[in-house]
Amino acid sequence: MTDLAPAIILVRPQLGENIGKAARAMLNFGLTDMRLVSPRDGWPNPDAGPAASGADMLLDQAKVFETVEEAIADCRLVFATTVRERGMAKSVATPREAAAQIRHKIQNGERSAYLFGPERSGLANDDVALADQILTVPVNPEFASLNLAQAVIIAAYEFSQTIDATPAYQPAFPEGQASKDSLLGMINHLEVELDKRGYFKSEDRRAHQQRMIRNMVTSASPSEQEVQSWRGIIKSLARPPKET
Amino acid sequence: MTDLAPAIILVRPQLGENIGKAARAMLNFGLTDMRLVSPRDGWPNPDAGPAASGADMLLDQAKVFETVEEAIADCRLVFATTVRERGMAKSVATPREAAAQIRHKIQNGERSAYLFGPERSGLANDDVALADQILTVPVNPEFASLNLAQAVIIAAYEFSQTIDATPAYQPAFPEGQASKDSLLGMINHLEVELDKRGYFKSEDRRAHQQRMIRNMVTSASPSEQEVQSWRGIIKSLARPPKET
Repeated sequence: MTDLAPAIILVRPQLGENIGKAARAMLNFGLTDMRLVSPRDGWPNPDAGPAASGADMLLDQAKVFETVEEAIADCRLVFATTVRERGMAKSVATPREAAAQIRHKIQNGERSAYLFGPERSGLANDDVALADQILTVPVNPEFASLNLAQAVIIAAYEFSQTIDATPAYQPAFPEGQASKDSLLGMINHLEVELDKRGYFKSEDRRAHQQRMIRNMVTSASPSEQEVQSWRGIIKSLARPPKET
Repeated sequence: MTDLAPAIILVRPQLGENIGKAARAMLNFGLTDMRLVSPRDGWPNPDAGPAASGADMLLDQAKVFETVEEAIADCRLVFATTVRERGMAKSVATPREAAAQIRHKIQNGERSAYLFGPERSGLANDDVALADQILTVPVNPEFASLNLAQAVIIAAYEFSQTIDATPAYQPAFPEGQASKDSLLGMINHLEVELDKRGYFKSEDRRAHQQRMIRNMVTSASPSEQEVQSWRGIIKSLARPPKET
């Protein structure tokens, strides 16, 4: 993670537990620059560590400030996270848009920050006024109940998603497909056993039924090992049932 | 939200509190179809309501199942959420890719589901074997500490983000996939016939062999018609050969 990864700034956070949870959310997605503005119960806070579940390093390194102005002094682009409409003439970004803008700033050598308000009341209008843009997480309008750590995790997740725009998509069949040779060997094995049991109703139908089997086996695209397993299954099914 | 919005299936969840938090995470992003498979402490659980912070409606409506098979019976596309590598030949999707695929299924009138495992251990390999694909949230490899509700919120958030997006996803399977119900019916039919013939060498090996069969059948991703054809083949193979 670059040094210019965005800061997560908790403004007047109330509960130490929530500061710890926010640290855990950050570190899950590789963010480490935590800043606290006037935490209500002082700092350090004994409730933060246990909630951080191992992200204590962030708490130890957290920088504490008296005011939002000081906390954002080294940042070029600041997003104020809000749930409610503020009726302010600021542009509103989604987490994805904010992440893209922050990534762009990093490419220019500039740092950004996300502001998050106190758990109960959210950011004051004076805090929002210091931000360049408003960040709103698009929650269900009939149930907007995102807590602090959840808002942080969405912001951090979206930032982490901008790092490598190349999709991480894996091939549908990570194992190599079986050779046509062994695929056809298996199909032949199956057809011989079916033939012994009168599966092919008539010579007219045979061609159609065989084509169907070939299509099904081919489209299943088994690996070499799977072909061996299927052959074991066919062999077993062709045996008479055990006496009971 | 459409009726076909994906189900969130918690498999053997341990703490009621986490079930409540998962419900809150879901409803924040408009998901309401919660399903529980064998919750450890039974259901309802008095710890769930307080943690749901108003999403109690989801808990009241949650459907409880004994097995994963029953819980996914009406779903066409199932993602198993895992953190660890499982060494299984299944394709791995990010939350964003999974959401795009699920949206595509909805456009075809089909339902999907996300499976989440128990808090401590995650999904068992037998659970993963029933899924079409693995979903992995791309967390910081040096600090992968996503809890259940956080994993749910990322999945639900990404699904909510697809609502307005034009679908970019191309169907991997032009024909509709068979329902899990009929897929499991076929697997069961196959296993019964194999059992009669001593295919399962010992009780120790049985679990492994069954998992292999489930993985192979699921990854073959047959259509409804193909499942019917395979059942005809199994039935035929299980018959004695004709006298010649």
